[in-house]
Amino acid sequence: MYSTEIKIRVRYGETDRMGYVYYGNYAEYFEVARVEALRSLGLSYKDTEDKGILLPVHTYDIKFLAPAHYDDELLIKTHIIEMPRARIRFRYETLNSEGVVINIANTALVFIDKESNKPIPAPELFLIKLQPYFQTT
Amino acid sequence: MYSTEIKIRVRYGETDRMGYVYYGNYAEYFEVARVEALRSLGLSYKDTEDKGILLPVHTYDIKFLAPAHYDDELLIKTHIIEMPRARIRFRYETLNSEGVVINIANTALVFIDKESNKPIPAPELFLIKLQPYFQTT
Amino acid sequence: MYSTEIKIRVRYGETDRMGYVYYGNYAEYFEVARVEALRSLGLSYKDTEDKGILLPVHTYDIKFLAPAHYDDELLIKTHIIEMPRARIRFRYETLNSEGVVINIANTALVFIDKESNKPIPAPELFLIKLQPYFQTT
Amino acid sequence: MYSTEIKIRVRYGETDRMGYVYYGNYAEYFEVARVEALRSLGLSYKDTEDKGILLPVHTYDIKFLAPAHYDDELLIKTHIIEMPRARIRFRYETLNSEGVVINIANTALVFIDKESNKPIPAPELFLIKLQPYFQTT
Repeated sequence: MYSTEIKIRVRYGETDRMGYVYYGNYAEYFEVARVEALRSLGLSYKDTEDKGILLPVHTYDIKFLAPAHYDDELLIKTHIIEMPRARIRFRYETLNSEGVVINIANTALVFIDKESNKPIPAPELFLIKLQPYFQTT
Repeated sequence: MYSTEIKIRVRYGETDRMGYVYYGNYAEYFEVARVEALRSLGLSYKDTEDKGILLPVHTYDIKFLAPAHYDDELLIKTHIIEMPRARIRFRYETLNSEGVVINIANTALVFIDKESNKPIPAPELFLIKLQPYFQTT
Repeated sequence: MYSTEIKIRVRYGETDRMGYVYYGNYAEYFEVARVEALRSLGLSYKDTEDKGILLPVHTYDIKFLAPAHYDDELLIKTHIIEMPRARIRFRYETLNSEGVVINIANTALVFIDKESNKPIPAPELFLIKLQPYFQTT
Repeated sequence: MYSTEIKIRVRYGETDRMGYVYYGNYAEYFEVARVEALRSLGLSYKDTEDKGILLPVHTYDIKFLAPAHYDDELLIKTHIIEMPRARIRFRYETLNSEGVVINIANTALVFIDKESNKPIPAPELFLIKLQPYFQTT
């Protein structure tokens, strides 16, 4: 398993009239979280796209346990639980500043060749970078 | 079962550099869809909040089958599949202008008393309005 | 002068913890407003882009007189005050459901050739469609 | 004059199908920029609100010189040019990673008493914290 963490401070515009972070805004937090997870592995999401490989989200699910509020500094733990094949799966836990897990989420992304608009297997570079974290003896 | 439909035209700011509707923006479409589903039943989401009952989202999941693009007029079919109790569940299908289902999603919302910040059962008015659609013989 | 109107209902995710529409979200309302103004003239913003002409915003200003709230049905009046040349200028007034003007805004957009990435004059079709509204005797 | 800087990395969801940061999203960047400017002065925007003083935006204007793109790390320079009275004014310059100014913006915010919903002068604490930067001899 490969795991990283990032901190995100809640912006005013991301709250709603309940005073909570709007439920739809976590998707963007998780996008930031997975892009930084890849970056820490030496993989640039932007470069991947520029080389003609898109990674649209195929499935996304989230379970909310508690709300986040304006100006909270959230900690998002991101995990790549298995070696990517046709899909790359990320698991996220969001913690508030008291260390309480406030939601748990998952995304599965597919690799798409921009030219053909067809699914392709995970690029070699992803496999090389992730391999060390999934060694079995 | 209670079902309604709404049309939503994709705004420019809702697209991303892939040219697709950003995956996080569907949450807002579904919020609009369920609010209109309730309105068509004679239930105002805003009035419910103003009376002290919040309806935060507890779980949300979505499966993407195809992307939507700028200026597309999407049709969202919203279904309330069961009588609400502690939770009210909505199911959504988004169709593009060719009638193709491009994603399927679910949300479960909980009823929270604003004062106590505790879960409460579905308000009487919700039950009265929805009862006719869940008659069993 | 060419003028049109559209109605936009405030979405929950567009409010902030003050209970107001977040100040940044009006930019998207005005984008919808000017796209619909063009559509009512027989001009498709999407087609313009697909033909290789981009219309990025060059300047934007807004003066807030009063807030909008969740579920409000806003009326946006859009005006094209002069014939476009290098720029096309739109003026907007947002009214709440009591008919009170809650903000006034302006945008100037430039025509950019996608290939060369350089400014170009307003396309012929824009001039033809707008000419009747700027006839002088 | 009081000046600070922050860095903001462009999120995927903030781009549009032109591949640029959507013009409406800068408002949120500037909100983050001014909140951090206040924080660096020892002023918490959140605490100010919690004490019953709201700071809604009264005017906002922006001039775009060049676009920002996905994953760019932007530098926003924020300036408080004059002592606040009824309003507090912020000026912003956004620079891309090559150090090029890509836009210039201004916001004026008003101080509103939450209870009375009426404008009030800048709170004492704002004046105390800002005074040292506006000393005249």
